[in-house]
Amino acid sequence: MKSTSRDIRLRNCFAVLRHLIADAPTSRQILARETDLSVATVSNLVTDLIELGVVVEVGREDSGGGRPRALLAPNVGGGVMIGVDVAETYVHLEVYDLALTVVDRVDERMEPSENRPDQVIEHIASAMDQVRSRLGERAILGLGVSLPGQVDVAWGVSGFAPNWNWHDVPFRKLLGERLRLSVPIYLDNPLKTITVGELWFGDGRGVERLAVLILGTGVGAGLAFGGQLYRGATNSAGEWGHTTINPGGPQCRCGAKGCIEAYVGAPAILWQWSQLDGRAGAASQTEAMAALAAAWEAGEVSAVRTVETVAEHLAAGVANLLNLVNPDLVVFDGWVTGVLGDALIPEFERRLPAHAMEAPLKAARLRRNRYDRNMVALGAAALALEGHLNRLNTVGSRSRR
Amino acid sequence: MKSTSRDIRLRNCFAVLRHLIADAPTSRQILARETDLSVATVSNLVTDLIELGVVVEVGREDSGGGRPRALLAPNVGGGVMIGVDVAETYVHLEVYDLALTVVDRVDERMEPSENRPDQVIEHIASAMDQVRSRLGERAILGLGVSLPGQVDVAWGVSGFAPNWNWHDVPFRKLLGERLRLSVPIYLDNPLKTITVGELWFGDGRGVERLAVLILGTGVGAGLAFGGQLYRGATNSAGEWGHTTINPGGPQCRCGAKGCIEAYVGAPAILWQWSQLDGRAGAASQTEAMAALAAAWEAGEVSAVRTVETVAEHLAAGVANLLNLVNPDLVVFDGWVTGVLGDALIPEFERRLPAHAMEAPLKAARLRRNRYDRNMVALGAAALALEGHLNRLNTVGSRSRR
Amino acid sequence: MKSTSRDIRLRNCFAVLRHLIADAPTSRQILARETDLSVATVSNLVTDLIELGVVVEVGREDSGGGRPRALLAPNVGGGVMIGVDVAETYVHLEVYDLALTVVDRVDERMEPSENRPDQVIEHIASAMDQVRSRLGERAILGLGVSLPGQVDVAWGVSGFAPNWNWHDVPFRKLLGERLRLSVPIYLDNPLKTITVGELWFGDGRGVERLAVLILGTGVGAGLAFGGQLYRGATNSAGEWGHTTINPGGPQCRCGAKGCIEAYVGAPAILWQWSQLDGRAGAASQTEAMAALAAAWEAGEVSAVRTVETVAEHLAAGVANLLNLVNPDLVVFDGWVTGVLGDALIPEFERRLPAHAMEAPLKAARLRRNRYDRNMVALGAAALALEGHLNRLNTVGSRSRR
Amino acid sequence: MKSTSRDIRLRNCFAVLRHLIADAPTSRQILARETDLSVATVSNLVTDLIELGVVVEVGREDSGGGRPRALLAPNVGGGVMIGVDVAETYVHLEVYDLALTVVDRVDERMEPSENRPDQVIEHIASAMDQVRSRLGERAILGLGVSLPGQVDVAWGVSGFAPNWNWHDVPFRKLLGERLRLSVPIYLDNPLKTITVGELWFGDGRGVERLAVLILGTGVGAGLAFGGQLYRGATNSAGEWGHTTINPGGPQCRCGAKGCIEAYVGAPAILWQWSQLDGRAGAASQTEAMAALAAAWEAGEVSAVRTVETVAEHLAAGVANLLNLVNPDLVVFDGWVTGVLGDALIPEFERRLPAHAMEAPLKAARLRRNRYDRNMVALGAAALALEGHLNRLNTVGSRSRR
Repeated sequence: MKSTSRDIRLRNCFAVLRHLIADAPTSRQILARETDLSVATVSNLVTDLIELGVVVEVGREDSGGGRPRALLAPNVGGGVMIGVDVAETYVHLEVYDLALTVVDRVDERMEPSENRPDQVIEHIASAMDQVRSRLGERAILGLGVSLPGQVDVAWGVSGFAPNWNWHDVPFRKLLGERLRLSVPIYLDNPLKTITVGELWFGDGRGVERLAVLILGTGVGAGLAFGGQLYRGATNSAGEWGHTTINPGGPQCRCGAKGCIEAYVGAPAILWQWSQLDGRAGAASQTEAMAALAAAWEAGEVSAVRTVETVAEHLAAGVANLLNLVNPDLVVFDGWVTGVLGDALIPEFERRLPAHAMEAPLKAARLRRNRYDRNMVALGAAALALEGHLNRLNTVGSRSRR
Repeated sequence: MKSTSRDIRLRNCFAVLRHLIADAPTSRQILARETDLSVATVSNLVTDLIELGVVVEVGREDSGGGRPRALLAPNVGGGVMIGVDVAETYVHLEVYDLALTVVDRVDERMEPSENRPDQVIEHIASAMDQVRSRLGERAILGLGVSLPGQVDVAWGVSGFAPNWNWHDVPFRKLLGERLRLSVPIYLDNPLKTITVGELWFGDGRGVERLAVLILGTGVGAGLAFGGQLYRGATNSAGEWGHTTINPGGPQCRCGAKGCIEAYVGAPAILWQWSQLDGRAGAASQTEAMAALAAAWEAGEVSAVRTVETVAEHLAAGVANLLNLVNPDLVVFDGWVTGVLGDALIPEFERRLPAHAMEAPLKAARLRRNRYDRNMVALGAAALALEGHLNRLNTVGSRSRR
Repeated sequence: MKSTSRDIRLRNCFAVLRHLIADAPTSRQILARETDLSVATVSNLVTDLIELGVVVEVGREDSGGGRPRALLAPNVGGGVMIGVDVAETYVHLEVYDLALTVVDRVDERMEPSENRPDQVIEHIASAMDQVRSRLGERAILGLGVSLPGQVDVAWGVSGFAPNWNWHDVPFRKLLGERLRLSVPIYLDNPLKTITVGELWFGDGRGVERLAVLILGTGVGAGLAFGGQLYRGATNSAGEWGHTTINPGGPQCRCGAKGCIEAYVGAPAILWQWSQLDGRAGAASQTEAMAALAAAWEAGEVSAVRTVETVAEHLAAGVANLLNLVNPDLVVFDGWVTGVLGDALIPEFERRLPAHAMEAPLKAARLRRNRYDRNMVALGAAALALEGHLNRLNTVGSRSRR
Repeated sequence: MKSTSRDIRLRNCFAVLRHLIADAPTSRQILARETDLSVATVSNLVTDLIELGVVVEVGREDSGGGRPRALLAPNVGGGVMIGVDVAETYVHLEVYDLALTVVDRVDERMEPSENRPDQVIEHIASAMDQVRSRLGERAILGLGVSLPGQVDVAWGVSGFAPNWNWHDVPFRKLLGERLRLSVPIYLDNPLKTITVGELWFGDGRGVERLAVLILGTGVGAGLAFGGQLYRGATNSAGEWGHTTINPGGPQCRCGAKGCIEAYVGAPAILWQWSQLDGRAGAASQTEAMAALAAAWEAGEVSAVRTVETVAEHLAAGVANLLNLVNPDLVVFDGWVTGVLGDALIPEFERRLPAHAMEAPLKAARLRRNRYDRNMVALGAAALALEGHLNRLNTVGSRSRR
């Protein structure tokens, strides 16, 4: 529970750099205004960021009579971060410059049978080999990896990946041995990386109390307070998908009944549709979801009813989150939001007021992720960036004191 | 979202003073160890707290060879804080010294008909007159008032008190005009004041992620992160009592259905018992709840079944909180915990593992408020103390720089 | 499972007499047409009914060219039946002639403390004394008594009256000893007597598959097939009020959870209203229900919402009945229907199609009891009439064979 | 609502013949005792049954002093009935003698694509051709056909077969034109034919109030009162599978939510298992159900939990049936009972008392279909037999009067 001035510097550094990434080029003065920090504080931080090679001066602007102000931008020619999105059927690896622009990318497909840790690591290694050959001498500042399931962040261990039947796999250690990188590896699950991605590159930037709802095969909520991911006591905060909205409801794969995920997870959505229409079972999960979206668009009764039912349960679940957490912003993310969002989100919004209390309902802006970016990989890379910035506290400011 | 060094100083100041109140007399060195801060930081803070009249040196202790260390304690002869617990049938006012010990107390009964703001204020004023005459010259550092319902903290307004039909009453302003105090008045609701009370004087002290469950006529959860009350965007965070656990469940007084409060609020508990046993309706709410506890103690079937049913719903609701927030500690508080806790809490704990996920369940310690104190009034006084300490940032440290 | 010609004669006799009561004066020919029986069968039955003193010829009508036809009517100058409606706070005794017209009536109030069998019997005896003195020499053909709770019809025993805590009280024997009547006593509960009342005097007359929904303090469904009450194996058929519509729903006084009665019984309706509006608890159950009806009429939000919620649960419960039993007619009865029906029934009908299957929904006519009669007492008297008609099989037809 | 002596004769005829089929050879005297009818009534009926070629005298037995009594038996050398079980993937046709013994059988497989009425009829015709060639001159007394979905019995029309998307197909007419049979065709759905099968050949024989629960891909309850199938107003009685036990429960294919079928229908059972264990989705429905039964036998946690969950919902649903209908006997039937019954039924019975009221629970015997027979086809043939016996009323008794 100790709070130190180092914590504050890092938090403020994140705020400044996020604004710089969003609005570059810009000046210290504007950054101060946007972040509500003093110009002196911003200047100190910028000095350190420049020293660390993260920010560069890119020119000057007229300041209306006074001395021309320096224009700052992320150092897009500097080092890169690597974000890896590992799912059950693929490994997506993306390389980001310091403006969080994708500069390289490799996709590896995995067979369902390839579910041992060494097999997954081999795919990551193969992707890394390809991008390293193209990066040449450019420095890698850090590597972030998103793994499905529960992840012990401190120890870099995959605590439990249900679909692979992994238990306590020392993934970070194994991956480090295979890759022989000189930079740190950060491990987390998609719920957490997407939320970090929203803090750095999405609508979540600058939001004091943020909830990111990830609607996909699994369902969860990333929470962030004061610009920082809220992990809870054991990095399992945000298991909103496994909060109960009906103890007599359908079986959930977590073992309990009537969890939100048992109503609005992708398999549950498609199961409900299949009860009303035989097409749901015919194809892959994503194809079936696209078929549902198309059927809804065409006004088919079974699709309309399925969407309404899912929207009703989603409204009850989101209302619970609003009433308990009272966030400033809720961002909808995850592949189901992408595929079915046009149908689902408006129906959900119509039903929300019947469940949520007035004050938190009014307070919460609702947004849908509008960026055509892989937020899982981006967030994993942002974890690596946050790790790199942590060096500020040892390197940067010491020199000035 | 700005974080400043002032915020940190205040947060660390709270941590130091909470330990001092709990373990006085003690030394700077021990405080540093307990709070995980440097001795230099603690020393700076203590200097300021002494300057502010909040802490005093009370002696010296041998330090095993070195210079004797100063022993510190709260300045129990200094100013006092006043905490007021306003409920529908009474006004309880308590006077606290800086060790948070009660030094005076006045109880006023209110008739059900006395529900206009001016009537409530008159009772507070009457109680204040009594304690002021006994305080003599002793300084009042601040006044905290707990009001039922929704409270706008910044504006000191009772936004909505359903049982009194108050809407947007400028209570702080009205009370200030009546009392003509020279110190600030802090207004909040019991959910919030109890949680602050737990941070200063209960098991919540020093806990990083705290949830306080208040089981009473209403039901709610106070959340605190990093030693500070989490209020949410509009001070309505923690409306756990109005999260849904069954959309087809009983009507809740918030207008929705199947809220936790509609199952485990005192009226709901007694209604369920009355369905099985006619005695429930016979008496006041607290008398009926005590009768239920006695009937459970005697092994009466209707009471046993009622407690089991309530425990089952409570388990589902608390599991939702654990899964979403992943706290380090859950403290049960509120008058229903006091009266029915011996029956309810063990039954609840038995059922919790069927609903909660393994990781957050293991992480969360469960405690029942063991203090025979009015946590509502204590927390209201603690709000006033926190306000007083905020002067550190303007008065204290400046002098040294 | 034996079916005998005696059964058929009795069933046909009921059909003929019910039409006679409804449409007197009328002829054998019209009765044959209305009951779909042959004129010969009807004539045989009428001969017996006349012999039994139940029917009389009251004149002749022109038959369009042929021999004038005899006009028949119930023998309103003949014997009388007595029906007694025993509830927790009163005893209502009514005397009926053979047209089921009320010819005398006594109301006795009972104190809540008067709940021993001998006290209840004393009230019935007192009422009987009054009517007997006024009846003079007129014959009493039978006495029917409706008691709350479970009744063993064959043994005349009150198996369980929960609000009085009666268990296996030999009520018929005790009452017989006290009254010293020479005619049989029939005992049943209001669920059954109301249904029999509907068969003899309500919309249920002539309906092949009838369900009578009784909405009152308790809730239940009387079923009748082929013009005869369906009692089930142990006279407990029709406990529709204790079928579950939500296993996680509110506590029911039967011990289970989420029963229909726990949502739409009078105490549950008023409890729900009281959650939204304080007035509900102020008065007696019937006064509070009338206040709810008035508040709904006035468009008050809390009343409107309460009625909507109750209607929603009622729709789910009635749909279950339609889907399982597929009746021709559903009649709504009970005091809650009387007081709140104008509000509740239309809201219910709007919601029913969302729950019921198409075929049984189309098949079932819905009616509300339109008669300003005490159907409990009328049905109890009708039970006595049915018992009297059973003598047909021993007296009547034998003489002709 | 007319009751005639013809109805009674037919009903008594059914009772006599059912006992004869079960206990042949037997005497008129024993039949009278078993059916509770007079010897004269039984003798009349037997005379007619012999005249109709349904029963024969097969010898004489000593009657302990008196005249030797004739021994009676079904005329197994007489005509035959044909029962056809049409499902989505097969047509099973069975030929029965008058003792309801299978004397011939043809199984036809159907492809999923063969779902037009003419294709189904062609399979029936093909099977009929095969058995007719083997029957030679032996008379066919009638043909009963069970079709999935809703059937209009009077008009011989398949009102709605959801999996084939049939609407109002005049199936009986089409089949009659194709087969050119001189005997009547009876059409109904499996819910009804299984129940009739239980009345003629199962535990339901001689039971006054019978409920047959069919657990299969669909779920339903056949009701029979007084030895006769209860069809309701539109032959849709018994849609127990589509009564709601949780309005917030999972989507049902009927369009509503939380129906019993949505919890305990085969697809729902397997879906729940698949949430806990990946194997469920791997195979055909029957193979997957057998795998679940094997996994339960092996004590696998996911299987045990699935069975417990299904048993819990089944208990709630059956309790609703007991409380409303109060039957003497409940028989479990359907392929899921066959495959999973050893696991499911005991778990269900353990949970039933928590949901059912005491009186109907005590009254209802619970049985599981113990016969290794196709009850769908047998019941269809029994419908044809019932139709044949109806000729009694025109042919048989007239000759004697």
